[in-house]
Amino acid sequence: MQKRQLQMIMFIKCKDLCKRDNPQVPESLGVLIGCTFLVAMFLFIPIPYTFEESALFDIKTGAKPATFPHEKFAEMIAALLSICCMILLGFADDVLDLRWRHKLLLPTMATLPLLMVYYVNFNITTVIMPKFVRSLLGYSLDIGVFYYIYMGMLAVFCTNAINILAGINGLEVGQSIVIGASILFYNVIELAFGHQVDCHKFSIYLMLPFLAVSLALWKYNKYPSQVFVGDTYCYFAGMTFAVVGILGHFSKTLLLFFIPQILNFLYSVPQLFHFVPCPRHRLPKYDVRTELLHISTTEFHLKDLNPLGLLMVRILKNLKLISWQEQVDGRVITNNFTLINFVLVLFGPVHESVVTQFLLGFQVICTLCALIIRYPLASYFYEA
Amino acid sequence: MQKRQLQMIMFIKCKDLCKRDNPQVPESLGVLIGCTFLVAMFLFIPIPYTFEESALFDIKTGAKPATFPHEKFAEMIAALLSICCMILLGFADDVLDLRWRHKLLLPTMATLPLLMVYYVNFNITTVIMPKFVRSLLGYSLDIGVFYYIYMGMLAVFCTNAINILAGINGLEVGQSIVIGASILFYNVIELAFGHQVDCHKFSIYLMLPFLAVSLALWKYNKYPSQVFVGDTYCYFAGMTFAVVGILGHFSKTLLLFFIPQILNFLYSVPQLFHFVPCPRHRLPKYDVRTELLHISTTEFHLKDLNPLGLLMVRILKNLKLISWQEQVDGRVITNNFTLINFVLVLFGPVHESVVTQFLLGFQVICTLCALIIRYPLASYFYEA
Repeated sequence: MQKRQLQMIMFIKCKDLCKRDNPQVPESLGVLIGCTFLVAMFLFIPIPYTFEESALFDIKTGAKPATFPHEKFAEMIAALLSICCMILLGFADDVLDLRWRHKLLLPTMATLPLLMVYYVNFNITTVIMPKFVRSLLGYSLDIGVFYYIYMGMLAVFCTNAINILAGINGLEVGQSIVIGASILFYNVIELAFGHQVDCHKFSIYLMLPFLAVSLALWKYNKYPSQVFVGDTYCYFAGMTFAVVGILGHFSKTLLLFFIPQILNFLYSVPQLFHFVPCPRHRLPKYDVRTELLHISTTEFHLKDLNPLGLLMVRILKNLKLISWQEQVDGRVITNNFTLINFVLVLFGPVHESVVTQFLLGFQVICTLCALIIRYPLASYFYEA
Repeated sequence: MQKRQLQMIMFIKCKDLCKRDNPQVPESLGVLIGCTFLVAMFLFIPIPYTFEESALFDIKTGAKPATFPHEKFAEMIAALLSICCMILLGFADDVLDLRWRHKLLLPTMATLPLLMVYYVNFNITTVIMPKFVRSLLGYSLDIGVFYYIYMGMLAVFCTNAINILAGINGLEVGQSIVIGASILFYNVIELAFGHQVDCHKFSIYLMLPFLAVSLALWKYNKYPSQVFVGDTYCYFAGMTFAVVGILGHFSKTLLLFFIPQILNFLYSVPQLFHFVPCPRHRLPKYDVRTELLHISTTEFHLKDLNPLGLLMVRILKNLKLISWQEQVDGRVITNNFTLINFVLVLFGPVHESVVTQFLLGFQVICTLCALIIRYPLASYFYEA
């Protein structure tokens, strides 16, 4: 059946621009992966709740148990609702090619049910302060509605961060697998310590099937890609991470696993907010002769930039974070500001699969850093 | 913003075959309507739970209340999850044009979360028997797992029943509005009687926004259609009805509001199950000269039909429910077996808008019959 669905979905096709003959590759497989995940979760839902002792039905009367964990159950369903909603919106984006401002609005909409559940089940908006500011602000601070805004923005960030660090074979899926595995590893450590058992169990319930479907997708999406994942998969993966971060109460740790995405976002800021001209696509250029990727570039006159843009460009240039070619007529040619291009600036033209491997390796190293920050360092700022 | 989204969605276009110059009409507006419904519901969720006295947070400590109706809350979220899932699958169907067997599988998948919640919150699988069989089977009968199969099949029926009584301007939306209004009317009556207040309140919460978005869609979808709704809307509407029927505990009454759809389904059975040849489209034929609709036909040799098909065709012929033309070479030409064609068999060629008006009028009459069956007649079979 999967084979047939693959054939049907193939009519949404896309050219692979980094290959010799620009082969047509079926696009938007993410929707299939997302639906598989949802069906697996639907079938899984009753299992953890049926075998809890407190949740057993009275066999004689069929009456529902008095102590059934309805809160946890509502959380699980709301999590799936947010993910399902995001897959729907992502698929709509793939098919209809929405504009940027909608890409920010959509995840906000999809997070609403999650925030509702958070409001109803927890409504804890208190942030524990690091030790060194406690004398000023006290042990904890209730930031109220800002906590909800923070959570909403977390979802917007997670979904879009994966979507902008993308475009070469296997990168979207690869980074999602690394992040998912990092979260799973963190959950297992916390479970072993016996911290907040319920939250981390909840996260594991979602992460295991997520990794399973992502690994299946990776098989077809890795270099050379037989399928593309579309925005749907990026949104789906990002929302799944945001959901476990929010309802699992480890949103700060979650952000630590997103270091490469955060760096990519910060590096992209001058172009994303149009301080520097941003072409429609910022993918590296493919050289047919050598089969290597070269940086893609953007051109501008320094006098056309506003003061803030000029400042950003000068900082990046002085830190040697961008390539820089000044033409005789005063035009400047630099690489596009993405992590993918930055890898090419560092190492020169390399093969597409090498770029992916390098970025995934960097993601793994960042996870190790994140765990170091989370465990030994955090005890300096908070209790151990 | 809506205007711009309409423009973007317009690239999925479809020819209106029942108009003079087959104008291109934007297709699959259902996904926009469905998403609007979901967003409205997301924003609405906290309202009924915030103002219930038992649900108020302790303002000083921010602790969650002990008596918060978590069960009801989980129901509402599961209902939205099923609807969201169905919109996603419907949109996938519109874009990818799935096959028939998937159309039966998809609603089953989408109902899963609903059945889970039913299992966890109620798990009542007992059917109350009509008075005249109680001496045989007792007052009630626990049908166990069959009750879940019944509910799953109800969802499959509701989603597909609207989808097969469709194809002329405004019919899908019109019938959904009539059914929705009937359900709302029934809920209000039951609320006035004070029966099962919670269930009917739940249904009203879903029906009001459903009617609002459907009326907005009706404005553009009524004859002459400026937009088409796609399978998405039919699935969305059907699933919304199934959800309120199942979680509102009035699935039998719900089926009474589907009488025209049931008749259409029964009438279609010979073609749907291929006892009689079924062309890809069974829409009526448009006559450019007179601007009237004529029946569309199917041809077969009586000797090619299997015994069951022959029996069905003979019954329909003798009851004068189909047109019948025998050719000299033994071929038979009949109308396609849909309620739309049946209206044309009855009244001869009429204008497209007249067919819609007639079918919607019939739907209203059926609702009145349903209420008569539900109220005065049901008391003969069950308690008043």
